[in-house]
Amino acid sequence: MNFVAALNDVAAKNLRVLEEHIRKAIVKDSFIFEACEPLFKGGKRLRPMLFLLCANSKTDCPPEKTMPLATALELIHTASLVHDDIIDTSKKRRGVETANSKYGAQIAVLVGDYLFAKAFQLVAENNYGAQVQLILSKLVKNLCVGEIMQDRSLFEVPTLTEYYTRINLKTAIFLSSCCRLGAIVSKMDNHEVENLTAYGSGLGLAFQIIDDLLDFFGDEKITGKPRGGDLKSGVITLPVIRALEISDEASTLRKIATSGADVEAAIKIIQATDAVDYCRTRAEAHIESARVNLPFTLKTSVALALEQIADFIVDRTR
Amino acid sequence: MNFVAALNDVAAKNLRVLEEHIRKAIVKDSFIFEACEPLFKGGKRLRPMLFLLCANSKTDCPPEKTMPLATALELIHTASLVHDDIIDTSKKRRGVETANSKYGAQIAVLVGDYLFAKAFQLVAENNYGAQVQLILSKLVKNLCVGEIMQDRSLFEVPTLTEYYTRINLKTAIFLSSCCRLGAIVSKMDNHEVENLTAYGSGLGLAFQIIDDLLDFFGDEKITGKPRGGDLKSGVITLPVIRALEISDEASTLRKIATSGADVEAAIKIIQATDAVDYCRTRAEAHIESARVNLPFTLKTSVALALEQIADFIVDRTR
Repeated sequence: MNFVAALNDVAAKNLRVLEEHIRKAIVKDSFIFEACEPLFKGGKRLRPMLFLLCANSKTDCPPEKTMPLATALELIHTASLVHDDIIDTSKKRRGVETANSKYGAQIAVLVGDYLFAKAFQLVAENNYGAQVQLILSKLVKNLCVGEIMQDRSLFEVPTLTEYYTRINLKTAIFLSSCCRLGAIVSKMDNHEVENLTAYGSGLGLAFQIIDDLLDFFGDEKITGKPRGGDLKSGVITLPVIRALEISDEASTLRKIATSGADVEAAIKIIQATDAVDYCRTRAEAHIESARVNLPFTLKTSVALALEQIADFIVDRTR
Repeated sequence: MNFVAALNDVAAKNLRVLEEHIRKAIVKDSFIFEACEPLFKGGKRLRPMLFLLCANSKTDCPPEKTMPLATALELIHTASLVHDDIIDTSKKRRGVETANSKYGAQIAVLVGDYLFAKAFQLVAENNYGAQVQLILSKLVKNLCVGEIMQDRSLFEVPTLTEYYTRINLKTAIFLSSCCRLGAIVSKMDNHEVENLTAYGSGLGLAFQIIDDLLDFFGDEKITGKPRGGDLKSGVITLPVIRALEISDEASTLRKIATSGADVEAAIKIIQATDAVDYCRTRAEAHIESARVNLPFTLKTSVALALEQIADFIVDRTR
């Protein structure tokens, strides 16, 4: 299922305006544009879309109040992808050649830094205030801590708590911050701010669990990545953690997980357990928690779009 | 001459308080501290010191109003060094092993990102306002554009204008922003803000020209770097630009500069011209311009420290 197809008219209209703003944010310098423009192709725009929907969920918030921050969120997300691709020495992202592969690590580091800085510039220029700046800077810091945590414990089996801490830092805080910012910018009351934050958090946890599942069992033609890539590179995720708990072949699986060798055998061992169902159930529980946190006070059209995003996240195939 | 020894009591007292604040900013996470602490050893603290002196140049500005931003400036500088060291694949910086060499490029990218984010967090938490945020984000963006410009034109001879654009983006804007921020935070009048900004800009241009000179003619034992490192890696600086203009052996020098081979021969060609004197004269002119821009209204002790910094910059040997 395509993300954009899953969106209703409200969301789709926002998306078109957002694309113009992203383009405007990177046109200044000709090389920056040349290097950055391909990076913005093919993204789902999930983060700015969550922000925009939440910002417009009670009354219409004027685009000049929302679009700069929506753009900043996508710039931050893209910057983190550019830096991740250096880390993973990935060749392709969103279907196009990565900055790292095209221009080398040197330029890729700087292009990522540029996008981070440009995001903070957009926010300062549009006077969003210290609270918004603080949420954004903490979000970036948490992304880094989550990634560092992951890189520092490659080929080590995390506890369930460690796994959740990591996906919270890497993904859930980002998604919940987008929703929280939307609620703050549109001046919703505290209760609504907290509820939309909780919606985003549930969404984020489910999103990452499904991501980790797709890494093993997704259709390579759709995901564009070889199966078991995470395990091979030492990132041990929920399907493995679950299978290690209950499989008769746990010791073999542990050897594979802590060495990265023979990923296909690991996939068979995981498939012989209830790990896939277990992960789906966990993801669905987080989506359910997201759903029940949606305030009753939202406009129907927006509530519907936020529900559609929740559906999309568990049903997606890439 | 040692930078700290060049400072008077006012500056030295600030420096001690600053060190505590830097330490506090990175202690949160044990790995971050382990990775970051060595990075902060041995730095000159030139940027936060300029900020602190300017902030205290008319009346005493309370430390709680200045130290978070001073710390943020040093975090940003250090983050940019960490990312530069990935770019240059340097093994040592400030006399200690680089993050890149110790933990690999992966972690070094993230540690730099963490420091950038932490800097913006400090500024948001302490309510410096949109104007300060904007100066900081533009400063980081300009650093990136300057570095990208440099990386994209390695082994190409820049025009004088291109050289000045690059050192302005890479160094002068940072130093002038530090002074400007000091003047803004201490609520100086517009005239003083502009003058201190101009002081910082002159300082920055001189600083980079001397840096470029030291790269060729500094004492390796003091600079800790082999002579001609810039030329070897394709970065063509003012001594070369000047020598190309007037040397009889310009065509040989051009071949060396555009290939990076035989740096020792290039040094001899440059030395046979007036390039060293020319660069010194340019640097001194920028320092002089910095000096004349110092407002008369400053406290004597601070004016003296700012003059000492100007002296230090042309006299330094590393």
